[in-house]
Amino acid sequence: MLIVKKFGGTSVADKERIFNVARRCIEDYKAGNEVVVVLSAMGKQTDVLLDMAVEINPKASRRELDMLLTTGEQTSVALMALAMDSLGVPAISLNAFQVAMHTSTVYGNARLKRIDTERIKNELANRKIVVITGFQGINKYDDYTTLGRGGSDTTAVALAAALHADKCEIYTDVDGVFTADPRIVPSARKLPEITYDEMLELASLGAGVLHNRSVEMAKKYGVQLVVRSSLNTTEGTVVKEEVKMEKMLVSGVACDKNTARIAVIGLEDQPGVAFKLFHHLANHNINVDIILQSVGRDGTKDISFTVAKDSLEEAVATIERHRATSLKCQKVDIEKNVAKVSIVGAGMMSNAGVAAKMFEALYDVGVNIKQISTSEIRVTVLIDETQVERAMNAIHEAFSLAE
Amino acid sequence: MLIVKKFGGTSVADKERIFNVARRCIEDYKAGNEVVVVLSAMGKQTDVLLDMAVEINPKASRRELDMLLTTGEQTSVALMALAMDSLGVPAISLNAFQVAMHTSTVYGNARLKRIDTERIKNELANRKIVVITGFQGINKYDDYTTLGRGGSDTTAVALAAALHADKCEIYTDVDGVFTADPRIVPSARKLPEITYDEMLELASLGAGVLHNRSVEMAKKYGVQLVVRSSLNTTEGTVVKEEVKMEKMLVSGVACDKNTARIAVIGLEDQPGVAFKLFHHLANHNINVDIILQSVGRDGTKDISFTVAKDSLEEAVATIERHRATSLKCQKVDIEKNVAKVSIVGAGMMSNAGVAAKMFEALYDVGVNIKQISTSEIRVTVLIDETQVERAMNAIHEAFSLAE
Repeated sequence: MLIVKKFGGTSVADKERIFNVARRCIEDYKAGNEVVVVLSAMGKQTDVLLDMAVEINPKASRRELDMLLTTGEQTSVALMALAMDSLGVPAISLNAFQVAMHTSTVYGNARLKRIDTERIKNELANRKIVVITGFQGINKYDDYTTLGRGGSDTTAVALAAALHADKCEIYTDVDGVFTADPRIVPSARKLPEITYDEMLELASLGAGVLHNRSVEMAKKYGVQLVVRSSLNTTEGTVVKEEVKMEKMLVSGVACDKNTARIAVIGLEDQPGVAFKLFHHLANHNINVDIILQSVGRDGTKDISFTVAKDSLEEAVATIERHRATSLKCQKVDIEKNVAKVSIVGAGMMSNAGVAAKMFEALYDVGVNIKQISTSEIRVTVLIDETQVERAMNAIHEAFSLAE
Repeated sequence: MLIVKKFGGTSVADKERIFNVARRCIEDYKAGNEVVVVLSAMGKQTDVLLDMAVEINPKASRRELDMLLTTGEQTSVALMALAMDSLGVPAISLNAFQVAMHTSTVYGNARLKRIDTERIKNELANRKIVVITGFQGINKYDDYTTLGRGGSDTTAVALAAALHADKCEIYTDVDGVFTADPRIVPSARKLPEITYDEMLELASLGAGVLHNRSVEMAKKYGVQLVVRSSLNTTEGTVVKEEVKMEKMLVSGVACDKNTARIAVIGLEDQPGVAFKLFHHLANHNINVDIILQSVGRDGTKDISFTVAKDSLEEAVATIERHRATSLKCQKVDIEKNVAKVSIVGAGMMSNAGVAAKMFEALYDVGVNIKQISTSEIRVTVLIDETQVERAMNAIHEAFSLAE
């Protein structure tokens, strides 16, 4: 079996943890498997390097930042290969140049385009554990690039796809994917299986276990993902196309507190006004979520939508800049203390009444719904940030997720 | 003018020093020159990385060590490019893959074979300062290699040769090449010029300013070297084929305390006995210096020679291992507290009496000579370690080097 195993920075933060990871990989190796290991930079090393760069040049170019940051993973993989070697197992570390890991040209947020597998296959054929730098690539100019947030997960999934690996294990500090965040909902339960689509909805809703890009890629290439803990040997959660067991109505409840709402009140009721509003925001790279449009008074309309909290300021500034010209409106309201709570489940599609049940649960505990958004396998509500805990527990119980 | 400038780890140890170097390079750039900068890893970074590796694996493989160590220079060059950029000058950092810097396959002590100059020339044509990682290369397997001691100097000289640079400036923490180590001989004087051959003798004698390999390469390709200080703007010492001024009899006095003497007493006086002795030592990679053979008593002979202090133990063990068979001898004496003192000068070749003058100076201050060795442009004596200071000052004065 060919297994790709990915460990984050926390898992390789010091000597002891490096050896823990090494031993874990060696177990699979000694059982006769081919093992490819993908690593992030040690602990907070990426932040340390970023701080050094910003101290020298607050407007650091992304090209040079990537040149700097890629030293982080190179350090991890070399030390890991040394650790495995000292445990008597032949290992070799490879960076993005050595693999080679071709990406688009965009520094700081490149997309993987193509992975050469020849070197990796040769090293595996020589019965070595191959330890590969996550997060980094090279572009057509032979410059280092980095893959942006969740980059190492994406590297692991891409390698698993390119190598036709039997599975891709993503190690984190939690036991797997839960029906809800156990810190908020104490009765939350680990899911044995989940579909790619459910995982995608959960990831984008702030469940934070896997990054969207890696799940999308896993779905596209049919890579079987396993999310499991690097701290224990508990079986994790398998992410795949079809889950075997009877589909649950709802797989989990997620929340995202990094949300703010903007309401643009009293817009002129003319064709194209919504287009203009979101066009301006898109031009400033502001991602907009849950949009709601309602008819206002006196032939005007109101449009409200949510953005990430750290985009709020720029979003409002963008709107204000165009109020005199293309975006005439009466006022712009903002609400900072809101959060999104969502239920996700592939079973929802074929079952009516799921949303209603969620709303009922919220009504029962006195949580006011400010806005609603749905997809085929998701229902999201916007509520007051202070009510997140109460809301999530009520929903979790209403759908009997703890059982 | 195309200038290659090399700065060691001390010169880029922190933010302030990085900016000092950046400003220095920018001066040349703004004067209209093309500037290539070669950097070592910051401060003690290479040692820090080595310590990390050894802690994880005391028998760390050289291949993985090189993978680890090369992150050091990559960090320096990225930060330097960021510093230059923040001072308003376009700069780009390149590592051994990007250049590309082809070496032999030997990890930890590779030789440069070929440097691709296309990328560098393109970046220079775009009026960028090109900041390149010293010390590192890539071999035919696409693996990182390092060049061993003095590696970054060699990188700089090789780049200067490949790019047909007008000069190659090696920045150190001293003002240039001195007639003697100023810490030992207070009246020592900085030399404005010195020949490659003199520099080679001085480097190998522990003057420690430039590594032999870089001087050899500079001589081979006719690269004009300048050794100067990164701490001030004093003109340094120019190292070249022919010095313009009238040749001095002696250019400098050097000492090397890293020396121990081994005397093999009462060897059988048979053909091939010297060959066997030094063959065994060579097999253990022990470098032997100043060899002296004399006739012993009763048809035996004595051979004594010097080795570096840290090779002493292994050298003696090697001899002892063969005493019963091919190296029959009466005893093996060792002397640890010895040092080599040498005078070097291209003018020596055409002048008799230079050695005699040196011996006289030593006799006058009561320094006993234990062994003598000479080359065309060098005379070396072995003396007691405690007498080094007295000896050097006496010689320095005898040849009027302070004037």
